[in-house]
Amino acid sequence: MLPFFCPHKSTSCLPRNLYLCLRMELALGIDIGGTNTAFGIVRKDGHILLEKSVHTRSFDSAKALIRGIHEEIANTHYLSDLIGIGVGAPNGNTFTGNIENAPNLPWRGVIPLKQYFEELFELPTYLSNDANAAALGEKLFGVAKELNDFVEITLGTGLGSGVIAQGNLIVGSHGGAGEYGHIRVVPNGRLCGCGRKGCLETYVSSTGVVRSIRELDSDNRKISKLLWKENPEARDVFEYAQEGDLFAIEILDYTAEILGSALADFAAFSEPSAYVLFGGLSLSGTLFSDRVQKSMDRHLLNIYQGNIQILNSSLNELNAAILGASSTVFWEKSKSDV
Amino acid sequence: MLPFFCPHKSTSCLPRNLYLCLRMELALGIDIGGTNTAFGIVRKDGHILLEKSVHTRSFDSAKALIRGIHEEIANTHYLSDLIGIGVGAPNGNTFTGNIENAPNLPWRGVIPLKQYFEELFELPTYLSNDANAAALGEKLFGVAKELNDFVEITLGTGLGSGVIAQGNLIVGSHGGAGEYGHIRVVPNGRLCGCGRKGCLETYVSSTGVVRSIRELDSDNRKISKLLWKENPEARDVFEYAQEGDLFAIEILDYTAEILGSALADFAAFSEPSAYVLFGGLSLSGTLFSDRVQKSMDRHLLNIYQGNIQILNSSLNELNAAILGASSTVFWEKSKSDV
Repeated sequence: MLPFFCPHKSTSCLPRNLYLCLRMELALGIDIGGTNTAFGIVRKDGHILLEKSVHTRSFDSAKALIRGIHEEIANTHYLSDLIGIGVGAPNGNTFTGNIENAPNLPWRGVIPLKQYFEELFELPTYLSNDANAAALGEKLFGVAKELNDFVEITLGTGLGSGVIAQGNLIVGSHGGAGEYGHIRVVPNGRLCGCGRKGCLETYVSSTGVVRSIRELDSDNRKISKLLWKENPEARDVFEYAQEGDLFAIEILDYTAEILGSALADFAAFSEPSAYVLFGGLSLSGTLFSDRVQKSMDRHLLNIYQGNIQILNSSLNELNAAILGASSTVFWEKSKSDV
Repeated sequence: MLPFFCPHKSTSCLPRNLYLCLRMELALGIDIGGTNTAFGIVRKDGHILLEKSVHTRSFDSAKALIRGIHEEIANTHYLSDLIGIGVGAPNGNTFTGNIENAPNLPWRGVIPLKQYFEELFELPTYLSNDANAAALGEKLFGVAKELNDFVEITLGTGLGSGVIAQGNLIVGSHGGAGEYGHIRVVPNGRLCGCGRKGCLETYVSSTGVVRSIRELDSDNRKISKLLWKENPEARDVFEYAQEGDLFAIEILDYTAEILGSALADFAAFSEPSAYVLFGGLSLSGTLFSDRVQKSMDRHLLNIYQGNIQILNSSLNELNAAILGASSTVFWEKSKSDV
């Protein structure tokens, strides 16, 4: 085998070929969920080399889960090329590296997840919440590559947000920044899981849309296909709206109006050049985002008019969580390289 | 004269003594207002060595004003020790360095203020809006010295805000971040100068308080001393509240309730460890700020409970504008020194 130039000056490249050498900087991205834990090996360009999933509840402790993931990775030739681990987990605190009393996970109390990972893998590990990871994923691999000021809005069961301002992820004084879903937008509005009323996510999220199906008063209600279904879901609203169902269109308008109006006000925080919608409601393409743009533009303060775009995420929802988690590794690496 | 160690390694120290040498890094802070323009020479520790004021309208152009300031400074021995100029001006755009169509200034159109200053003084010049300058002043010289995440709330005719997150001033994609006064907090509320309704500053500002005197419905109205005055002002509310005037206390509670509730929601953006109240309504000491703290705590999302303080600025209102403007110079210098 001929010698070749190794850009990483690493001995681990030598026995291999140039192709392997070039793909050396890899991150392990992990998305811990209440039901499944997905993980993958991600290249710096966002290409996922390996992707797996295990049942979270089949492990009787967080340590056992981490050992399980390690075994899966140890069987591959990627382990030596990993530069770090990014983990997204419910109630994960970036500052402490702990999962703190997560109601949806099978393990109780405070779990020093970062410490466990670092002990077993001997690699720097970054814990973050889903929306912050999605924002970094969007910045590194998605539609926000060229943007230094944007807010990722993740639409799922709830509404999360990750704020990038001047190229930095805003994490807050205790790791709790970017909770736009819990800004109250309707005084004495719908009761929220947080115990307060009128939070944005009680209207703009899958559960919010389902509540709108039940609660929205309209003459078009009784002629809507939505009422024929026993348990209509948010996705049904989009499907029926596209078919011309007037009540479904009303719900879409209502939801977009509330989100657009809220995002218009939130522009006064960080003056982003874009809001990027991710997941759930955004999967209908421009059907939803165009309405949000129109609503926002109508409500914007004059100095922001024309400067803020509503974009749909370009990340693939299936592996976005892994990409997002892994992006925290490349993100931290790029900061330390400066 | 004996030789001495000059920490600045500058020849300009040599003919002088150690005292002068140590106070070498000076900034010129300028606050351009519609009526007066105040300026001062500020030492790195926030000590103001010289302070002057001129009538803005006595100069027939911005260039003439700048020449006037230069003449005043040229007569002192400080000119050679200046490291930069910080200017606060209405409609001043940090990004372009221009004053853009300021309705309260005597000069029309777009004025390349930064360029004019740099041409005449041959010193780096930074243009900013009042609230951002106040936030930097608070960080360098005030109560927020040790804080990396806080929001300065300036209470005057309107309500301005300057956001420091992770030790950085958040300026936004076009220089328009931190406009908390124009977040709508009351649906279909009071008409705002911006053309929209219910903006925070229509309730929480001196003009907002005066509107409350006129509009707030209460049984205590007719027995209040506030109604005896022809044109009661915001400061009267504090004075009378301290004397036990029930209507004045109600207005104070009402204003603090709206601000506290709003700040509770805004915490979801940058999760500051403090809001610092500056000017106007905050000058009553803890009479106002204690009420805002209580209101905010009542409305905060549980994850933020107990982590966010309401503080009163420790800057002296009389020269805070000069200090704030000058702090942009030291701030930029500290960033380039890293």
